Amino acid sequence: MSEQSNYEKLSTASDRGKKAAGEKAVDYVKDGMTLGLGSGSTVYWALKKLGERVKQGLNVKGVPSSTRTENWAKEFGIPLTTFHDVQELDLAIDGADEIDENLNLLKGGGGSLVREKIVNAAADSVIIIADKSKQVTQLGKRALPIEVVPFGWEVTAQRIAQCGAEITLREKQEQPFISDNGNYILDCQFELISDPASLHATLSQLPGVVETGLFIGLADRVILE
Amino acid sequence: MSEQSNYEKLSTASDRGKKAAGEKAVDYVKDGMTLGLGSGSTVYWALKKLGERVKQGLNVKGVPSSTRTENWAKEFGIPLTTFHDVQELDLAIDGADEIDENLNLLKGGGGSLVREKIVNAAADSVIIIADKSKQVTQLGKRALPIEVVPFGWEVTAQRIAQCGAEITLREKQEQPFISDNGNYILDCQFELISDPASLHATLSQLPGVVETGLFIGLADRVILE
Repeated sequence: MSEQSNYEKLSTASDRGKKAAGEKAVDYVKDGMTLGLGSGSTVYWALKKLGERVKQGLNVKGVPSSTRTENWAKEFGIPLTTFHDVQELDLAIDGADEIDENLNLLKGGGGSLVREKIVNAAADSVIIIADKSKQVTQLGKRALPIEVVPFGWEVTAQRIAQCGAEITLREKQEQPFISDNGNYILDCQFELISDPASLHATLSQLPGVVETGLFIGLADRVILE
Repeated sequence: MSEQSNYEKLSTASDRGKKAAGEKAVDYVKDGMTLGLGSGSTVYWALKKLGERVKQGLNVKGVPSSTRTENWAKEFGIPLTTFHDVQELDLAIDGADEIDENLNLLKGGGGSLVREKIVNAAADSVIIIADKSKQVTQLGKRALPIEVVPFGWEVTAQRIAQCGAEITLREKQEQPFISDNGNYILDCQFELISDPASLHATLSQLPGVVETGLFIGLADRVILE
């Protein structure tokens, strides 16, 4: 809850941008839609606004991309469903850590990249919401999160390093951070990423790699505030 | 144990081939080597023979690719290590469900494809052992096992189906089979696979896919009996 109180303070321009972008995305939600619910601090504002509209009678169902989003959706009264019941979503709303000029994304700072990508890829349309600081000319200023199988992660890290990255095993309270899928996350600092699609293809095929935080060709619209 | 008793019966030519191939692989093990220990009924025989040589004084350490292999190695007295302590292996010995003329493999019938691939990829040299029935001109007569994240597996299965496969969620006692990594396995029946490397590249990049059972360019030597 302290996390939410922090969001609510709106103490910086970035915080206010997140709120504005999150709320604007809800304008694209139509009655009867099945929604992919992304993760992160900007999505928080979309969910809060969406909850208000649900209270006013809007009929939607959402598939959450993280445990945190699931909890927020429940708090705000957004009806949830699962991929067991619906395999195609009308619209996904999600955040991003970096957005380039071709709407390619770098995601995974919050550790939910696998489920976010599954949700985004299942949606007919994807709206990315962010404050303006997330706009970049080239991806890769931030470290690229890569989810890996815990078994042999040391070897997987070596192989990613050979692609030109400095690798840090993400930790939480001095233990490896565990994703919603029971995996580890390697934060991989590349030089600027000149060809995200090619890098993603290479990384995806390395044994031990579950998913990369490069989201190529998934976003249809970006709302930057 | 009943599983092992079954192996020991050697009631078919295939059973006897597995034993002969498994034992021959041990001829390639040299003193001081770190070994990748594959999985499956043929590897059982390699481990048993290796255990005999360890008792005679051979000094090796192995990284097991499955819980079952770990248990066998312990039973046969083979010293074990992990990727925490050693990131490069001298030799891996593993089985396969299909082996084509280019030494590309289809693996995963036993459900340990992710760890097997990590272990094989970490080894300087990989010996594949099998009975002769595993030799094929083209991969894909058997269903290709693909390990997927449980979240959204229904969507992942649809997307794999669009690549031209009939998909079965692997089950065990009427529940989804759970891999050593906590994931599901989809058994994907393609028409014969004309370009394994290209299919693997495509499948690897689908959201939700952890690893495919296509092992391309990993095997260095095949022992078929």
